Amino acid sequence: MLGVCDSLNDLLTPCVCVDEDRMLANIDRMADLARSSGVALRPHIKTHKSIRLARAQIALGASGITASKPAEAMVFIEAGFTAITLAYPLFHPQVVREVLAAAARHGTALRLIADSPETVAVAADASHALGQHTEVQLKIDVGLHRCGVDPYSRDAVSLALAIARAPYLAFAGILSHAGHAYASGSADAVRRIAREECATMADMRARLEAAKLEVPEVSVGSTPTVLLNDGLDGITEIRPGNYVFLDRMQISLGAARPEDVALTVLASVVSSNQQYAIIDAGSKVLSSDRGPHGSDNIPGFGIAVRLNNPSDQPFVISQLSEEHGFIAREGRPLAVGEKLRIIPNHACPVMNLTDRFVMVRTSGRCTAVPVDARCTSSQAPLPQSAST
Amino acid sequence: MLGVCDSLNDLLTPCVCVDEDRMLANIDRMADLARSSGVALRPHIKTHKSIRLARAQIALGASGITASKPAEAMVFIEAGFTAITLAYPLFHPQVVREVLAAAARHGTALRLIADSPETVAVAADASHALGQHTEVQLKIDVGLHRCGVDPYSRDAVSLALAIARAPYLAFAGILSHAGHAYASGSADAVRRIAREECATMADMRARLEAAKLEVPEVSVGSTPTVLLNDGLDGITEIRPGNYVFLDRMQISLGAARPEDVALTVLASVVSSNQQYAIIDAGSKVLSSDRGPHGSDNIPGFGIAVRLNNPSDQPFVISQLSEEHGFIAREGRPLAVGEKLRIIPNHACPVMNLTDRFVMVRTSGRCTAVPVDARCTSSQAPLPQSAST
Repeated sequence: MLGVCDSLNDLLTPCVCVDEDRMLANIDRMADLARSSGVALRPHIKTHKSIRLARAQIALGASGITASKPAEAMVFIEAGFTAITLAYPLFHPQVVREVLAAAARHGTALRLIADSPETVAVAADASHALGQHTEVQLKIDVGLHRCGVDPYSRDAVSLALAIARAPYLAFAGILSHAGHAYASGSADAVRRIAREECATMADMRARLEAAKLEVPEVSVGSTPTVLLNDGLDGITEIRPGNYVFLDRMQISLGAARPEDVALTVLASVVSSNQQYAIIDAGSKVLSSDRGPHGSDNIPGFGIAVRLNNPSDQPFVISQLSEEHGFIAREGRPLAVGEKLRIIPNHACPVMNLTDRFVMVRTSGRCTAVPVDARCTSSQAPLPQSAST
Repeated sequence: MLGVCDSLNDLLTPCVCVDEDRMLANIDRMADLARSSGVALRPHIKTHKSIRLARAQIALGASGITASKPAEAMVFIEAGFTAITLAYPLFHPQVVREVLAAAARHGTALRLIADSPETVAVAADASHALGQHTEVQLKIDVGLHRCGVDPYSRDAVSLALAIARAPYLAFAGILSHAGHAYASGSADAVRRIAREECATMADMRARLEAAKLEVPEVSVGSTPTVLLNDGLDGITEIRPGNYVFLDRMQISLGAARPEDVALTVLASVVSSNQQYAIIDAGSKVLSSDRGPHGSDNIPGFGIAVRLNNPSDQPFVISQLSEEHGFIAREGRPLAVGEKLRIIPNHACPVMNLTDRFVMVRTSGRCTAVPVDARCTSSQAPLPQSAST
């Protein structure tokens, strides 16, 4: 099913395209930022779910990778990645045992996170049962109010102590994700959130050290807070994901320029009426995300430029059906069959909606690449014991 | 990878579940409605993308199926379905040739639709090149302003004549989709749109007959306009899709009761903070759709009930990250590990986000079923000639 061709004009649509040069430049830029800031880089591969791209990130300086779910991590464990953070609080004993056993089998140094007594206990029990030590980081809520402990609650220190005291667990420091930066709407607001995150994490570290705990890692993530950070004081590791591709949200926050965006969706006009040109990329290609974490401060679902006249004024995709996008034509011609390149609002769910993408070289050469860890979010995972 | 177990409590989460009894009741009810209305039923399989479910629809009275894209149709052509409407205006010569050739090879009576001179020409050329006749329906825009010709434009009659006069095409009537009903907000408004659609289509038929064209089929679709229709005057065929599962949008429109909904997402609480309980179903499981076609008249992204205490007051999922859902706890306890069943706002994209779902029988018995035509929306379809 995979293949090659020599021009975007030869591709059938809709099609998810990655500009290789831009992607490599983005990977390089982040690796440089990490090096110059003296922090480790452990990129989040939920953005691309691709073994090939994760290998490129490692080759260009990443010290490991971050995965969003057990099934996603399993793909990279089995592919031989040696350092993985599974940045999801796991509560299910069977799942934790399986992922730890797989990591041991493949020689992966797997870090887990915890944010509740339940998640600490499950990690401790599974590690004990397997007779192996597991590094666990304490997840800190720095403002997204999703997972993580309140850094100013008593739970924060007591949970860290519980991790450190569990016979088969090693306390591996603290970890946060300032995902609320996406809804902040401006570069200044992102910078403020990034400063607050550093301050909160430094404060947390100090309180843990006061409780006689060593804090080997202070890990933060999110592409905008890393790219727009004024400094990474006290941070030892960053875990951005989206930066490999970037998207319309990053442009809107001032974290990227349009010419940095590496992921686009190639689409064709399939119909046209008085109000709209209709394209063959809908929510089953672009997703309905207006932005990450429910942020909805950008109008529409992507911007589209003509493939063969990219300097013409871009169009906004104003509405999505499952298989169609609506473009307000505003009187401009868009002929049936014309190809458009779309910068989606949010790149990460786009990659999750395709089995493969096209890597586009400067020469125009196009190569299909599988999305290896796609569809690891929901897979009707029946209990192992009952599998047939 | 597929398997069985005896209780929802044994399933790992997140997991897409289909209640078999409810689904069969929904399929039966629609088949009865079609029979009693004297119309053919050609359900849209983009909702489930499952060969097994499409076979159940045929076994219980459907005369054929409707598919949303060529790659989706191919799965059902190859599975031996004998009557398929590919309800998408196709403009790419290679795609049309391939899908028509596959239909001929497998003995499928495949209907195409057209809404522009380009799409008529491509269907005509491909049919001519293959030396086979193709049924083509004219797509009519009844108010969604997506695909379809304006029924009151001159184009409508001239395109129908162009189809009828093309040597290898057979004019197979008119087809519409009143998807704007989803944004109408009430059962009364849906009924009004359904009446308007019938009137518009009857008028269109009369104008085509005045131009000496026979109109063998007048086909309409959309679950709410079919379920809430006061009568299907002049209609010969219906193509609803969502009715097999139903969802929160259909409840909000008055087209379904909560106890009719067959598709739910089983999720677990993975974390909890002052404001929110966090579950392991995010936009990569539920999608970010608030409703079909960009409708956003329902707050939140789904309602959740406790698996083991379903009569307790439901919770609303107020925000989504990719792998997490946020539930405003409003002071009520939700413990880490507790399982919830979610009625999503829109069922169709949920099925597109999983490789398999769990069919749940009344006994509690759970069986994994593949989503056969998943991921047929965007697959980096490189040109056939260049495939390796």
